[in-house]
Amino acid sequence: MKTEILCIGTELLRGHINTNNAYISEKLSSIGIFPWRHVSVVDDETALENIFSAAFSESDLIIITGGLGPTFDDITRDIAGKVLGVNFITDKMVLDSITKYFADRKIRMPENNKRMAQVFEGANVIINSVGTAPGMILNTNYKNKKKIIIFLPGPPYEMETMMERAVIPYLKEHTKRQITAYKTLKIAGEPESQIEELILPIINTEKRLEGGDVTFAILARPGYVDVKIMVQGNDSMPVNSRINKIIKEMYDVLKDDIFGEDDDSLEKVVGELLSKKKKTVACAESCTGGLLCNMITNVSGCSIYFLEGAVMYTNESKTKELHVDKTAIEKFGAVSKETAEQMAEGIKKRSGSDIGISVTGIAGPGGGTQDKPVGLVYIGLYSDDYKNVWKYNFSGNRLNIKQRAVAVCLDKLRRYLS
Amino acid sequence: MKTEILCIGTELLRGHINTNNAYISEKLSSIGIFPWRHVSVVDDETALENIFSAAFSESDLIIITGGLGPTFDDITRDIAGKVLGVNFITDKMVLDSITKYFADRKIRMPENNKRMAQVFEGANVIINSVGTAPGMILNTNYKNKKKIIIFLPGPPYEMETMMERAVIPYLKEHTKRQITAYKTLKIAGEPESQIEELILPIINTEKRLEGGDVTFAILARPGYVDVKIMVQGNDSMPVNSRINKIIKEMYDVLKDDIFGEDDDSLEKVVGELLSKKKKTVACAESCTGGLLCNMITNVSGCSIYFLEGAVMYTNESKTKELHVDKTAIEKFGAVSKETAEQMAEGIKKRSGSDIGISVTGIAGPGGGTQDKPVGLVYIGLYSDDYKNVWKYNFSGNRLNIKQRAVAVCLDKLRRYLS
Repeated sequence: MKTEILCIGTELLRGHINTNNAYISEKLSSIGIFPWRHVSVVDDETALENIFSAAFSESDLIIITGGLGPTFDDITRDIAGKVLGVNFITDKMVLDSITKYFADRKIRMPENNKRMAQVFEGANVIINSVGTAPGMILNTNYKNKKKIIIFLPGPPYEMETMMERAVIPYLKEHTKRQITAYKTLKIAGEPESQIEELILPIINTEKRLEGGDVTFAILARPGYVDVKIMVQGNDSMPVNSRINKIIKEMYDVLKDDIFGEDDDSLEKVVGELLSKKKKTVACAESCTGGLLCNMITNVSGCSIYFLEGAVMYTNESKTKELHVDKTAIEKFGAVSKETAEQMAEGIKKRSGSDIGISVTGIAGPGGGTQDKPVGLVYIGLYSDDYKNVWKYNFSGNRLNIKQRAVAVCLDKLRRYLS
Repeated sequence: MKTEILCIGTELLRGHINTNNAYISEKLSSIGIFPWRHVSVVDDETALENIFSAAFSESDLIIITGGLGPTFDDITRDIAGKVLGVNFITDKMVLDSITKYFADRKIRMPENNKRMAQVFEGANVIINSVGTAPGMILNTNYKNKKKIIIFLPGPPYEMETMMERAVIPYLKEHTKRQITAYKTLKIAGEPESQIEELILPIINTEKRLEGGDVTFAILARPGYVDVKIMVQGNDSMPVNSRINKIIKEMYDVLKDDIFGEDDDSLEKVVGELLSKKKKTVACAESCTGGLLCNMITNVSGCSIYFLEGAVMYTNESKTKELHVDKTAIEKFGAVSKETAEQMAEGIKKRSGSDIGISVTGIAGPGGGTQDKPVGLVYIGLYSDDYKNVWKYNFSGNRLNIKQRAVAVCLDKLRRYLS
């Protein structure tokens, strides 16, 4: 089934980053539908007519987002209706839901909002539970060929809600797709090239095997790597047994470098381990400037295991608040093994946590020397039964170095807790 | 000049967020070139042939990124050459630069890399100073019409370097464009709807005025708002005087809600003010969990004015480390005016900074009550000559609430320092 995605809106052509396309592509891929083209276009009648005609001719499934709102520049519905030659009807349920949306918020409904209740005759209408413009699924003919054409509002949250609740279930039921199994392995602790070398024999063997279509992708993220595996076929038994075999082989070579699967994040995995082991943590940060605490506290419920963090930018604060030995700082420097160890010990003792974790380094762009270049980072972990300090030389700009250092902190916590 | 952008690569259709398109669109817009369409397509011969033929027929300037690398699935060059009917030649300078790239890194050059030195006859070749695949600018005819077709590598950093150094200068010189003046005003302290109401009279008057094309856009960001103004015309004098008049009118109504222009950020502006006034700051964070410190320390050189931060998730740490009155927490709660004030005072005194800033609230999704719902946030500022606490009710999810609270903290610092 040839599938494409169309995004309508001048802002998409003026520097606004389009995330709808990526979201829809990922959701479709997860049920074995793989778009071949994505088109974004300005709010212009002729431009829309052209891309609609081309898409309806060349693809079988077309998902369109944007241009469904109430204002004069929302022309998706009108132009698509014209190209398809379908009739409009007023949908009473949509009109009621829009009226209610304004009434609930005690705002007068502008007259032009009624236009959104005009839907295509024969379409499955998707009520917008988080906004006003409805979505539509149209199963129709274009030039004597069957087409599924889906209209969704542009605001990401409204579009995503409809994809999840209505579009994906509809497509699962109404399309013939190959069985697809999908897995993302999340890997930390090794550089991308090292991971690639380890898994390349598996990839090469799989690609030579007959039967079933196997796809791999290796994506470097800040501080970790995603390995994506996809297996397709006509029957679920061989597809599932094949992906399970590949996953097992990956675990065999990557071992505990794999920190999670699919939607897992390092901070979420660390949070789960801390909760399970009933341990608490406190952080002392220098060069990462609060990013480590920020990642840990992005996980809801973290107040059970996260006690406190100290962002210590000055040497005085390190000695005064964390009891880092002044002579050690003078002798070895603020960016050193000794300082990292004492920071981790200091924050553990001060907070009364089970684990203290510390990071000190040079995030740049200034502050580097021959001996201690930009990217040099020491990470310390201190607990009653284990302590260690690790040295890293990260590359990249200030923000990259902060992100990479924090990913390693989280990964060291994970390995200690595992 | 009809302009479109084509991005080649299967990963763009499998969930990878495409930022090249946004970057190129923004750069082109800034010199008065406005793309009408953006197409991304999988690495497939037929698909590429189709979109190249369509783009070369329908547009005058076509920018193509991706698919220029050395591996078998990099087919942009071959297919475009076939559609255009141009000859390939080996570029000695490109071959040397690729060979040098590998030699510098002491890696053996895989044979397939030589393929990248095959360029179109007559093209302006752009050497890749940060990678291997060269870019090309081709001034050619397609079906008897003059076209500018530009090929750039897919990796963002390589593409951006070429856009900046070669493509934008080339287009400035070789295209007839309208004079364009461009300004982004960055605004904090008021919700988007309030800002829109304030500037709507200016927008409406400008749109009624004759002469010159004026475009406005209002974009809500987490915790602040961008108002983008663009004026076009044939002569620079009237264009510049018109945009300056609009900017002045905007400042007249928005006053000190405008915190900066173009690439300014709140944390950068605050950093500049702190440096200029020779003041230091320290932060005590609860619900924002380190994000405030992280934003402040994203600015290089911040160690001059940023002393330390404390992320205090527990009541014990608030009383022990920041000397927040235990009975005040018991009586008013950790999320209260009293606690916010004492946290700001505590971090100022502990660090010896000129200014203490604090934030305590409920980021959710759990922890809210009828009296103190999710999104309730208190922000405190404490200095020798001024103190205050502000109360907010933010909406959104956990991450939105953290971001909005931090933007307000930075904005309060800015207003105090201005």
